[in-house]
This record gives sequence, structure tokens and C-alpha cells, in this order.
Amino acid sequence: MELTQFETNPSRYKHWKLTVDGETATLVMAVDGDHPHKPGYELKLNSYDLSVDIELADAIQRIRFEHPQVKVLVFTADLDRVFCSGANIYMLGQSTHSFKVNFCKFTNETRIYLEDASANSGLASLSACKGTTAGGGYELALACDEIMLVDDGNSAVSFPETPLLAVLPGTGGLTRLVDKRKVRRDRADVFCTLAEGFKGKRAKEWGFVDALVARTNWDKVVAERAKALAAKQTVTRGPAIELKPLEPKVAADSLAYRFVTLQIDTAARTAALEVRGPEWAEDPEKVAASGFEPWALRAFRELDDALLHLRFDFPDIGMVTVRTKGSPKLVKDCDEALAKSTSGLAREIRLFQRRVLKRYDNTARSFYAVADAADSCFEGVLLELALGADRFYMLLDGAEKIGVSTSIANAGFMTMSSGLSRLAARFYADESAVAKVLARGKEGAIPSEEAEQLGIATIAADDIDFEDELRIAVEERASLSPDALTGMEQSLRFVGPETLETKIFGRLSAWQNWIFTRANSTGEHGALTLYGQPERPQFQWKRT
Amino acid sequence: MELTQFETNPSRYKHWKLTVDGETATLVMAVDGDHPHKPGYELKLNSYDLSVDIELADAIQRIRFEHPQVKVLVFTADLDRVFCSGANIYMLGQSTHSFKVNFCKFTNETRIYLEDASANSGLASLSACKGTTAGGGYELALACDEIMLVDDGNSAVSFPETPLLAVLPGTGGLTRLVDKRKVRRDRADVFCTLAEGFKGKRAKEWGFVDALVARTNWDKVVAERAKALAAKQTVTRGPAIELKPLEPKVAADSLAYRFVTLQIDTAARTAALEVRGPEWAEDPEKVAASGFEPWALRAFRELDDALLHLRFDFPDIGMVTVRTKGSPKLVKDCDEALAKSTSGLAREIRLFQRRVLKRYDNTARSFYAVADAADSCFEGVLLELALGADRFYMLLDGAEKIGVSTSIANAGFMTMSSGLSRLAARFYADESAVAKVLARGKEGAIPSEEAEQLGIATIAADDIDFEDELRIAVEERASLSPDALTGMEQSLRFVGPETLETKIFGRLSAWQNWIFTRANSTGEHGALTLYGQPERPQFQWKRT
Repeated sequence: MELTQFETNPSRYKHWKLTVDGETATLVMAVDGDHPHKPGYELKLNSYDLSVDIELADAIQRIRFEHPQVKVLVFTADLDRVFCSGANIYMLGQSTHSFKVNFCKFTNETRIYLEDASANSGLASLSACKGTTAGGGYELALACDEIMLVDDGNSAVSFPETPLLAVLPGTGGLTRLVDKRKVRRDRADVFCTLAEGFKGKRAKEWGFVDALVARTNWDKVVAERAKALAAKQTVTRGPAIELKPLEPKVAADSLAYRFVTLQIDTAARTAALEVRGPEWAEDPEKVAASGFEPWALRAFRELDDALLHLRFDFPDIGMVTVRTKGSPKLVKDCDEALAKSTSGLAREIRLFQRRVLKRYDNTARSFYAVADAADSCFEGVLLELALGADRFYMLLDGAEKIGVSTSIANAGFMTMSSGLSRLAARFYADESAVAKVLARGKEGAIPSEEAEQLGIATIAADDIDFEDELRIAVEERASLSPDALTGMEQSLRFVGPETLETKIFGRLSAWQNWIFTRANSTGEHGALTLYGQPERPQFQWKRT
Repeated sequence: MELTQFETNPSRYKHWKLTVDGETATLVMAVDGDHPHKPGYELKLNSYDLSVDIELADAIQRIRFEHPQVKVLVFTADLDRVFCSGANIYMLGQSTHSFKVNFCKFTNETRIYLEDASANSGLASLSACKGTTAGGGYELALACDEIMLVDDGNSAVSFPETPLLAVLPGTGGLTRLVDKRKVRRDRADVFCTLAEGFKGKRAKEWGFVDALVARTNWDKVVAERAKALAAKQTVTRGPAIELKPLEPKVAADSLAYRFVTLQIDTAARTAALEVRGPEWAEDPEKVAASGFEPWALRAFRELDDALLHLRFDFPDIGMVTVRTKGSPKLVKDCDEALAKSTSGLAREIRLFQRRVLKRYDNTARSFYAVADAADSCFEGVLLELALGADRFYMLLDGAEKIGVSTSIANAGFMTMSSGLSRLAARFYADESAVAKVLARGKEGAIPSEEAEQLGIATIAADDIDFEDELRIAVEERASLSPDALTGMEQSLRFVGPETLETKIFGRLSAWQNWIFTRANSTGEHGALTLYGQPERPQFQWKRT
């Protein structure tokens, strides 16, 4: 089985150079054109593909955990007249629809993580655009706290996607322009239809960049701005912890990590995901101090990796059962130790768990959580997997050994993209139901029957019915149209308020998803298909 | 030119029977199978198509204006075992993509208007489902204040779209389940994958209907509930006003109403929309009392009709210029007379203007507002057309005769679907800019140059440049991919908070739009294509 390699580290980067100097980390974009993610295109002019973005995601993550002293991340490029020319068009042109959509989603998540680092981890970012900054390149800049553009009469920021490719900026750019930067919608409209974008004074005055800097002063001003951003940070991280290789055991139909197993049933188009709890009582920080990764970090890194493999490497697997195994007590202790700690590391681990759970919410597969064994441990942070699933099946065992438990991890910190906790989303606008579950959870484990009454279990069934009911539900789900299920789950999962994140994933991405399937972009005569060729695209003009 | 007929009245209804009895209006769904909107399918079992929904929209509108004493609208059906079986599948199967999308949008708008009538006009609604209530039938029920289901061991509410057709419930149903009715997401998930739906106890206990009523008691309980809903209404409407036929003059390339003209340029794929202000100072209520429709109502009914023709009858026209003509002073007087009045009719007219302006926001065409003549009147409620446009071009005339003015209509009442006024959306999160415009507007007309400085005009240009700049902008817009423009405009127009309405139009509809284009629903072997045939659909399993 040929799997996408999501794990990397700075010594293996081909496209970025990471340097750390005191409070400043610098990521120099230096895309190696000869090392695309897949053969068939060349990564010219700092254009990017999945492999470039995997390295970027890795770098941001490592700065958060391994370089806690860093307070500002500066993006620059190794080319003199180009910062980044965006996602590689030929790569997009030759990719399948499902790859394009998953690529955009992953890239969006990485950009949102950059914003999360700034908002919650005392790690600001500065995009130092000393040259052409186009498409996804400008979207990366938009995800930073500040955008600095060189004022050389030539360099511009631009979104050429609509005029040149008949698609949208695919990494949340439209939403970030108007919702984040508060660019006026009519100015954004002009900008997004102009292939050459805006440079100089207009870029600054209309709010597309924060500062214009002459080429002569460039390095000095970048360093000053970085220093100023670093000085504003009040959140501290650390102590440092090294993110070790995950090294799952890969077999023909399974991926086995230390705490996570993903078992694939190709014929049934289903998968079984198992997450195991900690093996002993651990104080996450003491574990970290001794050079190991605590369960709370390691298990979620493994889960994150498994989810990415599910998305990219198993596109036909639409239905996933989710089970947990271990001691609820140990999960609870771990949740509480993390929540009580005042260290930056503990907060960083919790923030990471939150991001992984959001990645789970945003994975376009049906998830049924299943508690059917006495050693299941849907507790606290692992209970979130059941609350985030589309359904939760619980076995009614006579002895009431099967149950769920709550911890402080269910009480609000583990927010979804909407800003709601999963319990609050489950009982939308019914705060008393949330309070009832949390109060009851403090008294101990909640057996299946009570869990159903409290609204945690979707369906609780006894021995006689359980296996059949679950089997039929799984088979039925796997037989339904994958497109309709994705649209349905996107609509049911994200109840309540919308945020920049949910707008990017739920609204903007849905439009792009549609546009990608239309002949005007990807058909024989579509603009994306014909990019770089002399032939002009031919459009069907119907407006929908 | 064969145009869709959006105008109708109860004497011409083929599919509904409207009766008014005191405070209660009853709409009996009695779809005439032999009168579909287009030949090629039969409307069996109270299934509906555009012509059914045009009559429904007309009925709701007339109850609001012509029957102000009505406080509750009851939906029933003329069949004994079927309330409504939803949108006609064969109609969907044979429709073009753009028709399907526009049909869903229109139907959604009608449902939202029903909710608007309940929230703002003292007109509640009760869905009395005495039989099968499926798909769009249940979506109509969800738009009502209360859903009553007959408890006969057989009748169910259902969303069979995903299991049977590989598409989504297309009229906001998923959003209404979880966001409006607060059905738990996992229960909604079970419901939406079960073709037969829920009946009896489970429908009630899981929150899908409000009451279960035995067949024997049916009429009595319906009458009681209707009376109880009527008794709760505190808002009063009236006096009554008759909605007269619009009767536009239709030529090969134009639609001319009394106050609105839509001029089509087929070759350029552009249209020119002109809205004219009132012809004399009018007190809307005095005009109504004398049996005529005031400008404020008539002009917006015409605009509404023109927008619908644009959507359905001119799918290739992607770019529309919007001009106004008349006296700003007369528009202002009219806005103020309406706002000052305490009558129900005045409020009803303003609510209608608000709905038409939302229809404009939600029309998937590029709008450029243009002020290039001294007799333009972008004032108050007509200024909203410029604020809602994608761009606003203003001519700088030496004499400063061209300008815009504000009125109370710009100060908050004319909200977009997001709940923001168009000024608040334009200056998102910058309340001082909104206040500045409104304060300056009180001092009199704002000439083009100042309008640009204040952020009202996108581009102001002088005589030498104006015509060329506008011409090029229009030509460029008309040359871009219609799909990319729709996605772009949907993202830029709706900045800020999301609501049930924006979720339905921006998120749910986008997913459905994508799903409609996928082979799994509309391909040769797709479920929608093969519905009613012995052959089973074949799916492509990739999840995106």
C-alpha cells in the first residue's frame, strides 16, 4: 500500500528553510521544482502542492512544540521577485476532484492553525512579500497577522483564480478578505476579477496589505516589524517537547500506531478506527520532562495522521466505526492534569487535541461511534469522538459495565469550528440538557440506558438486537451516495453560529467544490484544463 | 418571447384552494396533475413544481396584503392519505441544472416569507398533515409555526431524498431541522437516511412534529390549534389593499413596467435594469385608500417580478447594470411617510421592500449600480440597490448634480439575510463609517466625489474616463466564468454573521448545487435519473 507521507521534519524539508533565532523563526519558501508531490508537473516560481503544504504544517507544529521561545514567525522567499505564486495550476489540472477538494481542505486547516497559533499560543506571524504574491500565496499572507508588500512599482498581491482559471481562491481567501480583513465587498469584487491584482498605494489604501516597504529598507523593516510583533505576545509556551516519528505499522489493510488503529475493509467500503486510552496514570508534564511524549499528545498525533490517511489514501471508504479501549479513569486523570496545569505545554497539548477533533468534524466520512465492550473508554476528551460522530450506538449490557463518562474536557474548551462545545451543539439552545449531562457525569460513569435518556447515545440496544442493528446501519450507510452524505453531514454537524472557519469549510468550500465539477473550469474546454495553452476556454453561460 | 408567468391570483389557481374565514385562512393543497409547469410529467399525489409554488407564493402575499384580518394560515390537503409528497421527481429529472437551482431558490424564498409573516406580520401558520408528508412537503411543514401529524399508524414525515434520490432535501430542510427545530443532529442523521421517515410516537418524541392527533378528532383539533395560534398574534395588519396585475409590456428584448424596465442585450449577455422613483409626492396610505397601489409597493412588486424573470427566463444574462431615475426628494418623502406611519399597511410595504431587496442580494447575477445622470435617484430605499450591488460606478460631473442621498430606509430596517443593514455590511465592523454616512446624508445630497471618499461609490470617474471604464468593466465581467462569479459573489456579498437564511442559501444550497451536478444523482446511472425505473443506480464511491 502506497501511502501519502504526512510525517516529515526540518532535516527532510525540500521546499522550506526553517531557521530559529531567539524569538523569531523564519520560514523561507524555496520550493524545489523537481520534487513535486506527484510526477507530471514542475513547481516553478514558488508554486506549491501538497508536499509543500505538508512541510509547512509540520514547521508550524514544531515551532509551537519544539521552539516555545519563538514569538513570531516570518515568511519570506528565496526568489528575488516572487514571494509565492500560489497552488500549482498544472497539479490542479491533473488532479482528481476528490484530491483537489482534500488538498484545499488540508491547506485551509494549515492556514487556520497559523491563526490559531497567533490567537492562542503567543506565536504571531508576518508575511514579508518581497515580490509577486498570487493566489494561494496571498492566501498564506492573509492568514498571517501582518502583510508587508515591497513597494517596487511592480510587485502585487492578487487573486487571479476567477479571471484566469474560472475557479475561486481555494484557501479561504474570499472569506478572509471581507470577514477577517474587513475589506469592503465592492473593493474585494474589483480585486478578485483583476488577474494582475493590486500593487503599491492601492493595495495599502484599500486594505489588502498592512505596509508598503521600499526594497532598500526591506530587511531592516521586516526585522523591526517582527520584533514589534514578538513584543506584543503575552502567552508563553513550553517547556519544549520533541515531536518524535509516529512510525505506524502499515499492512495491506491496516495502519497500526501505538494508540490508534485504522482497519480497512475494502470490499465493504468501511473502516474501523480504534483509539486506546493511556496505559498508566501519567502526569503529562513529567512524562515530557523525561523526554517522552505523553499519551494526550501522542494519541492525538496518531489520530490526526490516521484521519489524513483516511482522507487522501482511502477515498472510497465512506463509513467509519469509532471505538475506544482502555481505562476511563486514566483518561479522566489525564484530562484533569492537563486542565489544571498552568504550563504552556499543557495548554499547547489541549489546543492540539482541539484541532485534531476539528479535523475529525471536518472529515467527509460518516462516523458511527460504538460502545459495545466493557473496556471501552468514551471519557472526557475521548467522549468528544462520540459526540462528534454522526451517531453513537451503545450496547445495553445487563451488568451496566458499558458506559460513558465526562471530564473537564467536555465542559467547553474543546470547541468545534462553530465555537460551540460538542455538547452545546448536540443540545443546541438547550443549556439545561448540557448542564444535566455534566452534573450527572461528575457522579461517575453513565451506563448505556441512562446515556440514551440523557441524549448522549443515539441508539441503545440490548444483546439480542445490537449486533444486527449496527450491522444493518453500517451497511445501509455504506450503500448511500457519498456526495449526498457529505452535503447532509456538513449541514447537520455544524448547527448554530457560523465563524470564519465554518464559513471557509461550509460555504466557500462548497461553492468551490461545485465550481471544480463544472465544465467551465475542468471540462475539455475549461479554463483550468486549458491553462498555459494557446487555446482559449469556452464557457457555458448559464448562471446558476 | 415566452416568459414564465409569475403573476396569478386565486381565481386562476389550479393547485391550491384558498378560503378565508374570519381570522383563519386555509390553503388546501389540491395539485392538479394535468397542469404541470412544463409538459412531460404528471403531478401525482400532491407533488409540486414551480407552478404550484408560484401559486403558494401568491397566496401568502395576498393574505398579507388583501386579508389583513387573517391571523393564522392552515395548510391541509384534498387527499385522504397524502398531505404532500414533495417536489415532483420526474420534473427534477428532466430539468436543467440552472432551472433546478433557481426552482430550489424560489421555493426557499417562499418558505422564508412564510416564516417572515409569522415573525413580523402577525400571521402564524399551521401545517395539518393528515397523511404522508414527504420531502418538500415536510419542508413546507417545517416552515410553519406548528406541525400536526395524524396518528393513524401509517402516516409519516420523511426526507427520502438522500436514500432514494442521492440528493439533499432542497428547501432548507436540513438547516430547519437542527437550527430551527433544534432536533438533535444524530437523530436528524437517522431520519434523513430513512426513506420511510418517522411516524407516530417517534416523530413526536424526537421533535419532528409538534402534535399527534387521531383521525377521528382531526378537524376539531386543527380548528382549536388554529384558533389558539391566532389568539397569540399581537401584530395587526391593514387596511387591506388589492394587489393589481402588473401587466408589463413585453417586447423581444425588454420588459417594461410602470416603474421598472429590464432591457436585455442578448449578444452582449448583459441587461440594463432601471427603477424609477415616484412621480409625485404621495402619502402611501392615502393612495391605498383611494384604491391604488402606492409607488413604494408597486415599484417593488415590479422589481420583484423583473428579478424572477431575469433568473428563470434569461439564464445567459450574467451582468446587469442598475440605474435609477427620478426625484430623490420624492423617494425620501415616501420612505419617511412609510416609516412614520403606525399602520399595518405601511409596515407591510416596508417588509415587502425588504424581501425584494433580499431577493436582489440572492440573485446570482453581477450587479453594477451606475449613477451617471443628473436625474438618477439613488436615495434611501433605492440607494439600497447601489449598496447591494457588487460595484457602484459614479460619474464625477463638474456641477455636482449627480449624487446619492440617504433616508431612514438606510438606517437599519432594510436588513440583508445576515441581519445586517447593507451599510453595516459595507463597512463591516466599522460602525463609525456607517454613522458618518448617515450623519452626512442628513445634510443633503452627497455628490460623487464625496460619495467615493465616504465609501459609497466603488469608483468615481470624470467625463473623460467614465464611459470607457464602465464599458470595459461590463465587458470584462460578462466574459468571466458564470460559475466562478456566482461562488465569488456569494462569498463577498454575505459578510459577517450567518443566520438560518444565509445558511440555507449560502451553505446548504451550495452543497446541493454541487450534488446536483454529480453523476451519482444526475448522471446516466444516477439515482435521480433512474428514479421510478427498475434499474438500480450505480454510484462512484469517492468521498469528497
